[in-house]
Amino acid sequence: MLSKPQIRIITSLQHKKFRREHGLFIVEGIKSVTEFIHSDYHVVHIFYTSQAATKLIKIPQNIKSEEVGEDDLQRISTLKTPQGVLALVQIPLFPTLTEDMLSNAFHLVLDDIQDPGNLGTIIRTAEWFGLQRIICSNGSVDAYNPKVVQASMGSLSRVQVHYTDITTLAHKASVPVFGAVLNGTPIYETDFGTEGLIILGNEGKGISEPVLAHIQQAVTIPKIGRAESLNVAISAALFCAELARRKK
Amino acid sequence: MLSKPQIRIITSLQHKKFRREHGLFIVEGIKSVTEFIHSDYHVVHIFYTSQAATKLIKIPQNIKSEEVGEDDLQRISTLKTPQGVLALVQIPLFPTLTEDMLSNAFHLVLDDIQDPGNLGTIIRTAEWFGLQRIICSNGSVDAYNPKVVQASMGSLSRVQVHYTDITTLAHKASVPVFGAVLNGTPIYETDFGTEGLIILGNEGKGISEPVLAHIQQAVTIPKIGRAESLNVAISAALFCAELARRKK
Repeated sequence: MLSKPQIRIITSLQHKKFRREHGLFIVEGIKSVTEFIHSDYHVVHIFYTSQAATKLIKIPQNIKSEEVGEDDLQRISTLKTPQGVLALVQIPLFPTLTEDMLSNAFHLVLDDIQDPGNLGTIIRTAEWFGLQRIICSNGSVDAYNPKVVQASMGSLSRVQVHYTDITTLAHKASVPVFGAVLNGTPIYETDFGTEGLIILGNEGKGISEPVLAHIQQAVTIPKIGRAESLNVAISAALFCAELARRKK
Repeated sequence: MLSKPQIRIITSLQHKKFRREHGLFIVEGIKSVTEFIHSDYHVVHIFYTSQAATKLIKIPQNIKSEEVGEDDLQRISTLKTPQGVLALVQIPLFPTLTEDMLSNAFHLVLDDIQDPGNLGTIIRTAEWFGLQRIICSNGSVDAYNPKVVQASMGSLSRVQVHYTDITTLAHKASVPVFGAVLNGTPIYETDFGTEGLIILGNEGKGISEPVLAHIQQAVTIPKIGRAESLNVAISAALFCAELARRKK
């Protein structure tokens, strides 16, 4: 049975402040937990119900694990329907972004993205298209928010999400800086070359003025119908797909 | 002030059963309500707060409208943060799908899509790329679910969403039937011609067996990285974009 302090700490991890304080985040579901075990992340503690135990892979010895009742899992889960397994995973410290890391590759740069489902979907999609890392502005939703982890469907275990001052990043970048906007060059006519930053804006406000100022090429996904804009995860996917199509 | 029966009826519209019973659904937010007023839909009743009144367009005389307090709007709203305006809109009866409607165009066909955010995003994306209508299996989430309406960002007012037995539809279709799967012909090498159904599967289970049996061409979005699958709204967008790109 879980103690009250244990439950208090784990449920506190639903808030960014306490995730930072404890250096931990929550991963749920057998598939996702298994992917984090097999990744470079350090899984610290796994809680599982007897029912899930039969489906779980053998947990490595260096990870604490503990069978708990359905009611206890319900107490610590972030999901309406808990999935039998919940892991506490250490928040990693990624190396600072260097020019070297940015060259010879494309990076999605997210300007104050707010919706956790959108960020999770972008992480999942970026991995599908072979991107190694995503860069978020400091004002973006936290990648270790349980809803982001959930929507990334395990891809967060393999795609690095960096947070930085993206105005400075765009200003100093030695690679080309592209921005997804509503009135730029059509994406199909854009020469992307072999490297660059692809900046995507906030759900409601688009790319902020200070960041816009550093965009070297404004790019647009051509519209045929009347919708006012595209969802940011959809735009991100269309950029990833177009870059992947040309690479072939 | 709203009466208790009014509040009871309006909140009941959060459930499909009562939407069907009353033939009504809820639209919230000035932008979305305005788009429904300007569409072919019949807006029946608009509730607005005094604060929102100043931003609202002139409401046509044939629509009942009523100023309500913030607390009353909170009671009937489906949102955590109500947006000042809530409209009751009549669920339309679309004509039955005919061969004629399906020819010379592409249609997304969704097999038991469950997530309202996904369906709303697909409607919004489909409109961006100029599609007129979307076809859903009878087991799919209801297009008039408040979360679908919200995620469609007004596009539901212009894109028809039809519900039908899609196994029969795919079986009898005189246009080509394409299916989005994990092991088909790469999308960039697929000859789509000028018309067809693009079938996309359920979030967890993909395309169901009976529907799969009628797919004439299995199509895949090529993967570079390791993610297991793509979100269904992302797949839908990539198909829409590829068809739009070729049309040009």
